[in-house]
Amino acid sequence: MSQQDTICAIATAQGGAIGVIRISGPQAIAATTSIFHPASGKPLNQYAAYKLVFGKIHSPEGEIIDEVLVSLFRAPHSYTGEDSVEISCHGSSYILQKVIHLLIANGCRLAEPGEYTQRAFLNGKMDLSQAEAVADLIASSSAATHRLAMNQMRGGFSKELSQLRDKLLHLTSLMELELDFSDHEELEFADRSELTQIANDIELTVSRLANSFSVGNAIKNGVPVAIIGETNAGKSTLLNALLNEEKAIVSDIHGTTRDVIEDTINLQGITFRFIDTAGIRQTTDVVESIGIERTYQKMNQAEIILWMIDSTNSQDAETLKSEILPICEGKQLIILFNKADKLTSEMRQALSQSFSDIETHKLFLSAKTRDGLNELETLLVKTAALPEVSQNDVIVTNIRHYEALTRALESIHRVQDGLQMQLSGDFVSQDLRECLYHLAEIVGGEIGVEEVLGNIFKHFCIGK
Amino acid sequence: MSQQDTICAIATAQGGAIGVIRISGPQAIAATTSIFHPASGKPLNQYAAYKLVFGKIHSPEGEIIDEVLVSLFRAPHSYTGEDSVEISCHGSSYILQKVIHLLIANGCRLAEPGEYTQRAFLNGKMDLSQAEAVADLIASSSAATHRLAMNQMRGGFSKELSQLRDKLLHLTSLMELELDFSDHEELEFADRSELTQIANDIELTVSRLANSFSVGNAIKNGVPVAIIGETNAGKSTLLNALLNEEKAIVSDIHGTTRDVIEDTINLQGITFRFIDTAGIRQTTDVVESIGIERTYQKMNQAEIILWMIDSTNSQDAETLKSEILPICEGKQLIILFNKADKLTSEMRQALSQSFSDIETHKLFLSAKTRDGLNELETLLVKTAALPEVSQNDVIVTNIRHYEALTRALESIHRVQDGLQMQLSGDFVSQDLRECLYHLAEIVGGEIGVEEVLGNIFKHFCIGK
Repeated sequence: MSQQDTICAIATAQGGAIGVIRISGPQAIAATTSIFHPASGKPLNQYAAYKLVFGKIHSPEGEIIDEVLVSLFRAPHSYTGEDSVEISCHGSSYILQKVIHLLIANGCRLAEPGEYTQRAFLNGKMDLSQAEAVADLIASSSAATHRLAMNQMRGGFSKELSQLRDKLLHLTSLMELELDFSDHEELEFADRSELTQIANDIELTVSRLANSFSVGNAIKNGVPVAIIGETNAGKSTLLNALLNEEKAIVSDIHGTTRDVIEDTINLQGITFRFIDTAGIRQTTDVVESIGIERTYQKMNQAEIILWMIDSTNSQDAETLKSEILPICEGKQLIILFNKADKLTSEMRQALSQSFSDIETHKLFLSAKTRDGLNELETLLVKTAALPEVSQNDVIVTNIRHYEALTRALESIHRVQDGLQMQLSGDFVSQDLRECLYHLAEIVGGEIGVEEVLGNIFKHFCIGK
Repeated sequence: MSQQDTICAIATAQGGAIGVIRISGPQAIAATTSIFHPASGKPLNQYAAYKLVFGKIHSPEGEIIDEVLVSLFRAPHSYTGEDSVEISCHGSSYILQKVIHLLIANGCRLAEPGEYTQRAFLNGKMDLSQAEAVADLIASSSAATHRLAMNQMRGGFSKELSQLRDKLLHLTSLMELELDFSDHEELEFADRSELTQIANDIELTVSRLANSFSVGNAIKNGVPVAIIGETNAGKSTLLNALLNEEKAIVSDIHGTTRDVIEDTINLQGITFRFIDTAGIRQTTDVVESIGIERTYQKMNQAEIILWMIDSTNSQDAETLKSEILPICEGKQLIILFNKADKLTSEMRQALSQSFSDIETHKLFLSAKTRDGLNELETLLVKTAALPEVSQNDVIVTNIRHYEALTRALESIHRVQDGLQMQLSGDFVSQDLRECLYHLAEIVGGEIGVEEVLGNIFKHFCIGK
């Protein structure tokens, strides 16, 4: 994939009034100029950047393919940093394909997925984490996912990482100096308590970023919820009742394009992801079940467990509790007494009494009549306890970043240990470099020895 | 729907990398200026037309909704003829909805379907037939439909109608003059043989245009084909075999967005539309069938009939012929001897012999093994006999236009009759006006008496 290639692609989805074709690369303007005839008569390549030019696309046979608007960008002032053109056509599949064919005949090739953003990265228009945020931004379908992606795309995360990197470089520089001058006893450059202070500071930030992933992941992929209970407790009815609410909301915002892997429901701006826990439905013999291990694994992903009880026809409360409660350890548990529309107040009291030993949220509802559904939604949102994110919050949403941060955290922990154990600077420096490397992985840069050395001479000029 | 309103809409389909929002109307630039913050710091309304401006969309709370490119158009140099703006956003449903909401909060309203093109028409940027061609162009999915729509959108049809109108106005003027001066015997303005010549000329053109609809309709909606035959003759297998071919082609051009009402197949650039003739499947008792009338009506739409015969197990040839042939009258008939892979050469000869009295195309094939399928496709294309259309051909594809032309043709026929029967100019003029009216319906203009009179004074200044 040479950047010498000029790439083209249809950048809009099929079926709209308008279709946009993007062209980028050294031949973008020349290729477009040869198929595009501006109404003005002045060839496209003679126009200034940032101009909109109206005209016609002709086939080599002189047939008019479309009347179009062409947007002109000149390197480096474009999304990719290259010469670029956008052609706004009528949204006919025939026209769009025809224009693409003409561009290919004029030396362009079809772009690979993400290749525009990849070029923007390669040309230094953005770092890797920003490039990844572009995809998240396009996929964003709620205020929260949009905010996180926007902040990341605009470099909020990159800035935080850059500050971290500066601190790490500073620390590395101090370590290198300690090494260089360790033979000269008269020089006391490195105060290890200062080094420890800096390392602790770094650890705190990396750790905060890594920890933000649980919130970021919940916002991006949904708060994982498991509904458990006996087969007839009404799990499906509840899920459908909640989904109905959602459908109304979704149709209001014209549907989203994200693939749904599990049932997700958006309640008051928070996405909940319902984990398929098929194996737990026959809870009465859950302990004997062959699928128990897999079910436990699945349950383990859940942050919230909705335990549905058929109020009219459930097992003995103590038996249920002994089977269900162990599964719910460490999770947010909500007990739902379903089919509450069929209960007398005496029955309600008896049920409440049977479960009074469990300290958790309990709700009487009827999934069928939808009584109590609003209360459940409010309770779910409250239980999810997702912080209101602002566009200034740096929250990690990408598993690649999370993994890199985790590795960086391990390195910085070794640095802390090394400093504490008075290990030689050589060893500590190695871990510092590793930490830098893992952080650099996120933004896609590379930290070489030259940079570390360059940093020494820049900040610590010792007059040699 | 006042044109004083400023309208906004998402002009691209859901799910692409880019989403485009269009705004048009007197407040288009002001509304966008109030939500859009150019990177340059210079407000949008201070930019010249045809400029591309990069910047951010902010919510009133200062939240960044997206980084966008804004295209600026100033009346009357825009698609609608009004001040217009196009905002090119990241293709997130959340972002696009949010921007639309912000525009509405700033005085815009959601556009009705087709309202941009309607405004272009109302502002004199195009006539009705051109406006209708825009929709056809966007729906075009083959070279032929694209050519016809492009010619119509670029005014090929309008020009032809305008020439017709000039001739009609000329004729009307002559008639009016004849009326005005009919008391002055010394003036012999109107030579009725000249009038007849002009009327015949007009009739020829209107008639040619009206007749082009059968070709135009076949190109736009497909050549109607019916497959008939006994239930086990292999109709479905054939249709699927043909459709498989088609699917390969369709996936190559990334699918089309046109609604498929009946099965349509594109062979060598010609679309064939297969008419559902369920009622004729049990041909052996077709005469007794209750559904016979409906079936005949359906059959009547077909231009080509594929009569499938199960070569291995069909009814007596004469019985079949007596049932099928009456249905095929006036149609292009192709007889298909299916399951030919199971025939000995003797059986082939016997079959050929049995049907030798029917003069039409016959083909041995096997829908199952696909033997003979290529020959059938070639035969269908040849039988459809659609002319190769060029971008200069004026061919009517719109049923509204066809109906208006048919009414215009009736009027001009009455004009011809009136002239021949030496009817008073009053009567003939009335029919001429009607003809003008029907042609005006197509382009959406109106022909008033003023225009006719104006035309008299312009072309026939008699010095009074």
